[in-house]
Amino acid sequence: MYQVNDNYQKLPGSYLFSTIGKKVNAFTEANPEKSIIRLGIGDVTQPLAPAIIEALHKAVDEMANAETFRGYAPDLGYEFLRSAIAKNDYEARGCNITADEIFVSDGAKSDSGNIQEIFSVNNKIAVCDPVYPVYVDSNAMAGRTGTYDMAAEKWSNVIYMPCTRENNFVPEFPKETPDIIYLCLPNNPTGTTVTKAQLQEWVDYANKVGAVIIYDGAYEAYISEEDVAHSIYECEGAKTCAIELKSFSKNAGFTGVRLGYAVVPKELKCGEVSLHSMWARRHGTKFNGAPYIVQRAGEAVYSEAGKAQLKEQVAYYMKNAATIKNGLQDAGYEVYGGVNAPYIWLKTPEKMTSWEFFDYLLENANVVGTPGSGFGPSGEGYFRLTAFGSYENTVAALERIKAL
Amino acid sequence: MYQVNDNYQKLPGSYLFSTIGKKVNAFTEANPEKSIIRLGIGDVTQPLAPAIIEALHKAVDEMANAETFRGYAPDLGYEFLRSAIAKNDYEARGCNITADEIFVSDGAKSDSGNIQEIFSVNNKIAVCDPVYPVYVDSNAMAGRTGTYDMAAEKWSNVIYMPCTRENNFVPEFPKETPDIIYLCLPNNPTGTTVTKAQLQEWVDYANKVGAVIIYDGAYEAYISEEDVAHSIYECEGAKTCAIELKSFSKNAGFTGVRLGYAVVPKELKCGEVSLHSMWARRHGTKFNGAPYIVQRAGEAVYSEAGKAQLKEQVAYYMKNAATIKNGLQDAGYEVYGGVNAPYIWLKTPEKMTSWEFFDYLLENANVVGTPGSGFGPSGEGYFRLTAFGSYENTVAALERIKAL
Repeated sequence: MYQVNDNYQKLPGSYLFSTIGKKVNAFTEANPEKSIIRLGIGDVTQPLAPAIIEALHKAVDEMANAETFRGYAPDLGYEFLRSAIAKNDYEARGCNITADEIFVSDGAKSDSGNIQEIFSVNNKIAVCDPVYPVYVDSNAMAGRTGTYDMAAEKWSNVIYMPCTRENNFVPEFPKETPDIIYLCLPNNPTGTTVTKAQLQEWVDYANKVGAVIIYDGAYEAYISEEDVAHSIYECEGAKTCAIELKSFSKNAGFTGVRLGYAVVPKELKCGEVSLHSMWARRHGTKFNGAPYIVQRAGEAVYSEAGKAQLKEQVAYYMKNAATIKNGLQDAGYEVYGGVNAPYIWLKTPEKMTSWEFFDYLLENANVVGTPGSGFGPSGEGYFRLTAFGSYENTVAALERIKAL
Repeated sequence: MYQVNDNYQKLPGSYLFSTIGKKVNAFTEANPEKSIIRLGIGDVTQPLAPAIIEALHKAVDEMANAETFRGYAPDLGYEFLRSAIAKNDYEARGCNITADEIFVSDGAKSDSGNIQEIFSVNNKIAVCDPVYPVYVDSNAMAGRTGTYDMAAEKWSNVIYMPCTRENNFVPEFPKETPDIIYLCLPNNPTGTTVTKAQLQEWVDYANKVGAVIIYDGAYEAYISEEDVAHSIYECEGAKTCAIELKSFSKNAGFTGVRLGYAVVPKELKCGEVSLHSMWARRHGTKFNGAPYIVQRAGEAVYSEAGKAQLKEQVAYYMKNAATIKNGLQDAGYEVYGGVNAPYIWLKTPEKMTSWEFFDYLLENANVVGTPGSGFGPSGEGYFRLTAFGSYENTVAALERIKAL
């Protein structure tokens, strides 16, 4: 008789955003006359930029003719896209990353979930707390996280690095040495980040203790401060200890288009074993490439027109971020983030738990946010709002919150 | 110090099609004047059908406007696509599969590679031999296959079910009871299949011994014989023992578009544990949906115009299959497949090994095929040609082979 992977049975509840979706659906069914404003899940709302639309139409037309039709993509992604990434995201920033170190994927969520596969199940992971749930959940599914303590809301075999107002949201080196360190910077959900000098300390630490850093840079396009690194490879020595994951979802509005990439430097080795070769094998065995038309859309992100249009799109969302941040501060809330990231992280008022504040906001302001505790135990007492709504909705949501 | 997943180090050589690609590249570099005809990898060559192109353009235009823009897709896929699949691929064939048992994915290769994750690493798999390499490789990466014996070209902990001319390419029930049985029918690479009555025996066997069947139906659209099932759910009792994987790659030319789906019936349970819930959790945690525009293209596959156009496309490829089959028979080869599948499986002549015949054909006819031994030890002495080339190339390739 076959058996299932019993690690799945250890997982608590269901995936955070599915739970929120169910709560919101129940509320709207019970209150069909109420107009909900969603500043919860980090989903973009602005249309694709004209340069991207043009590239998509052109690629679709290519698929209509036998002479220009494209079947299976090259394993690592099309050269035209990998070269554009290498040139714009790395070479332009002085990072020595070449096109053949870049693996095109269907998005950073897949990469974030899958990257753990190339490591031993005996490795111990360290995560910022709070953080994007996929890192811990995907490791839990693989049996790397021990058992879940419902009361503490923690796994027995995960190193949690609290990021709270007490340490200015900067993770400290853990007492116990981790094998795999997940860093999402600028951070989801807190919207905060670290300076380049602080990131360099993490790179030095990883190289010293023999840990690998999984660096999720999904929000890189929203960085506005000068002393913040746009890639971990801006730090000395990162190529021997870090894998970087990037997404087109937030910088180009691709949440429904699906495109991302992973950088696995050729210098990154565990003894004699090349992690680049391992990821290439994984990619070649279990994945068949992002769609051709989507890879062409990704290329257009790096065109002159695309870059100009997306700079405006990011500015649009960051105007929302300022609106939320200032509005909440005016209303007396304690607020973080929103400067280098499209997320606002607020302290819940009057000792409300995160989920109490979620219900309070949904019921009284009809605004959907994300409970901080859904991102880890140290997120308890915090709440996330995103800048990805329309400007009109964002202003309206803040008017409602201020009126509470 | 972190450690890697050392199961990867047990994998022999590199992925079959990468090896072929390298050999062909080396040959073309050394012989730039030779015109190569590729009947190797199962990649389609005909352009997307007009109904699909139209749907893609329309969906791209929707992404250009805030009112019709779509961000993250629903976890299981858009309702419009899942309903079209349920209606056309199941209801129309008398199978009681509902839309919420269908999980839209980026293709059957991903699903084939990922599905093993929800099972215990202690389960033992059985595969047809020869077969699509992803089933065994993905289980090897998870540590389910024991050690690899280079001489025997077999894993120590895999049950191989030989499918050769001696048993008419119909797998027999293995002596040792498997936990997970992979069936790819019509089969890749042999192009052969089993009757519905024979498939029913496998369903009965799985239910009796407590095994789960992973049924890969990627080539279903090419079935031409009446007594062959188009879905495993045409068999009594399949909903309690089978997961079905389907692809749009071959029936609609989507190899470069990327779309597939998995059916996990709600009745499929291991004790009290629902495999549907597990796959939903996996899907929700590590995947973020197929692109909206691609799901709209998938919907167009089931439109009246789409169905008519794709029937013609399949007929085009099956004309190639007949051309290859008849041509090889005329040239004195022993040939199988090509009736219910776009693959022709030939016995190599004069006791050549599969790779010897690969080199012979590449060097003398400049035709690329796939060595049978690349699909498993019982594929040794066989060779695969695909019907996915253009008709002109297919005719030309056969002329060259006949002239040898």
